[in-house]
Amino acid sequence: MGRINRQLRLASRPTGLVEDGTFELVKTPVPELANGQALVQMAYLSIDPTNRVWISDEPSYLPPVGIGEVMRSGGAGTVVESRNDAYPVGATVTGLLGWQEFAVVGTDTLGQVVPDGVPITSVLNALGSSGMTAYFGMTDIADTKDGDVIVVSGAAGSVGSLAGQIGKILGGHVVGIAGTDEKCRWVTDDLGFDACINYKTENVPARLDELCPDGIDVYFDNVGGAILDAALARLSLNARVAVCGTIANYNADVADAVHNYGKLVATRSRMEGFLVLDYLDRFPEGQAKIIEWVTEGRLQAREQIVDGLENAPKALNMLFEGANTGKLLVKVDPSAA
Amino acid sequence: MGRINRQLRLASRPTGLVEDGTFELVKTPVPELANGQALVQMAYLSIDPTNRVWISDEPSYLPPVGIGEVMRSGGAGTVVESRNDAYPVGATVTGLLGWQEFAVVGTDTLGQVVPDGVPITSVLNALGSSGMTAYFGMTDIADTKDGDVIVVSGAAGSVGSLAGQIGKILGGHVVGIAGTDEKCRWVTDDLGFDACINYKTENVPARLDELCPDGIDVYFDNVGGAILDAALARLSLNARVAVCGTIANYNADVADAVHNYGKLVATRSRMEGFLVLDYLDRFPEGQAKIIEWVTEGRLQAREQIVDGLENAPKALNMLFEGANTGKLLVKVDPSAA
Repeated sequence: MGRINRQLRLASRPTGLVEDGTFELVKTPVPELANGQALVQMAYLSIDPTNRVWISDEPSYLPPVGIGEVMRSGGAGTVVESRNDAYPVGATVTGLLGWQEFAVVGTDTLGQVVPDGVPITSVLNALGSSGMTAYFGMTDIADTKDGDVIVVSGAAGSVGSLAGQIGKILGGHVVGIAGTDEKCRWVTDDLGFDACINYKTENVPARLDELCPDGIDVYFDNVGGAILDAALARLSLNARVAVCGTIANYNADVADAVHNYGKLVATRSRMEGFLVLDYLDRFPEGQAKIIEWVTEGRLQAREQIVDGLENAPKALNMLFEGANTGKLLVKVDPSAA
Repeated sequence: MGRINRQLRLASRPTGLVEDGTFELVKTPVPELANGQALVQMAYLSIDPTNRVWISDEPSYLPPVGIGEVMRSGGAGTVVESRNDAYPVGATVTGLLGWQEFAVVGTDTLGQVVPDGVPITSVLNALGSSGMTAYFGMTDIADTKDGDVIVVSGAAGSVGSLAGQIGKILGGHVVGIAGTDEKCRWVTDDLGFDACINYKTENVPARLDELCPDGIDVYFDNVGGAILDAALARLSLNARVAVCGTIANYNADVADAVHNYGKLVATRSRMEGFLVLDYLDRFPEGQAKIIEWVTEGRLQAREQIVDGLENAPKALNMLFEGANTGKLLVKVDPSAA
């Protein structure tokens, strides 16, 4: 067919942020499709903190991306050729499709076909792993109840911004923590959080004392480290800490220390890690709720778009530099909606 | 009646271990009983790590013992006078009766009457808070299942020695961590633990790698700090960390750091603190199980006795110096059984 695929392959493991030599841009012919396969032209890549985990040497919940392999990543695109009726030409498909312009699905790599009419960017945000992480984290793991005092770190990120809004919908009093005044204004003025702490300019422990004088019932953590420690120190009785991520540590050799775990005993509290992968079966339940809330105007999601496959490494670093608000996507196909 | 009560009252708050001036020995007449009260002659005091928590300034699950107040402590003794039919003369009574020779129960302080035939030392050990902590920690919090790989720190202590044995009874493979070879021999040779690590002479992370090559399903933690951190790093999928206590920190201004909390996410694990006070209603269930297992010869409990009320402060320090094996009790009445 003569199509050329551009791919970003892992060339070396970074020690901190991703560097110039971390990925190699490779041009390679798109292979002939085998029976059962379909070819997806990628529209968007989902840029997530966990991408950084996948390129470290440390075994984690998925094996590390191997040197020379296409970078693993969520993404979505359109079927442009097909030898599999489950993936008709023109369908939108999402999955772990990698940092590349064309992905082959149907055999080694599975993709989910997205129903007609769903915006492709939503598939990677509120209706995708970010939204499902926020939904199941706040409901299943944090067991959020009416009247809970809820603190969300990474509040202006894709998951945090949704988690805080879900906390409000479930009847909580929600305090966000974010890294700029602009982000704080977004989550309070536009998203309806009750308050937001700028952790770069404010004293987080002192502000938590002011904003949560009776303690914290739910802490939805995206960052770990000192902010987690400040939240642990202020847990109320039978509190729940939903550990979604520890972004403060993903570029570090040694994770930031936490000292206040003893508070879990005195308050009989629970700290629980979770991965959205474990909820794939229940995505329809979560997606139905998200669609309901979006339709009612009670939930909003924002995407921030970086253009060009070649800018995916820079986009990944942006997450750790606090340079994104809402969901960070890389637009691979300039003609995508 | 002319009886004189000797009491240890809190005189000052220690910064680390208890010191000479921390408690003051006071002689005071035993008051006339009011209607509804009974007088208990104390036989034994229960010496527990949490006693140290109670004399720090930090608010915790119970208010700090006030300066000038009798030291709070579990204990058991015999009713010697009574104006309350619920506490007949001769009955054994247990409760938070304090560091003193005589305690008044029935109004401000409640005590539980112990059924006839139960050894008074068991009331403070396997059938009391230590046994109930081990039982509900291993069942309710750690949700121990057949085949689990279980690690117990403070393995030769009152709670740890029982928790490990309960882990074996529930079908687990149990590795203890203790501070002397003699303690390790006790828990393996006498109590049936599968292995024990001497954390003072061995490399705990390396030994855990050897003894738990497939990871840890249940970590029953009595210590916190570096040992907790080593266990967190080795959690298997869906592991449970039952945080019973963090004895490494009770004498410290700043608790020992933990870095590996991020492992909770990758393994979808849960870390939960608990207090036996929350299980008072279910003590009969736990006590029935303990009696069954002791009767079957599957569970044993050891007490280490220190003589004399005046030695209670030294006994408390022994817990933090690793100087006890099994349950540490102070014998207040030299004639007690």
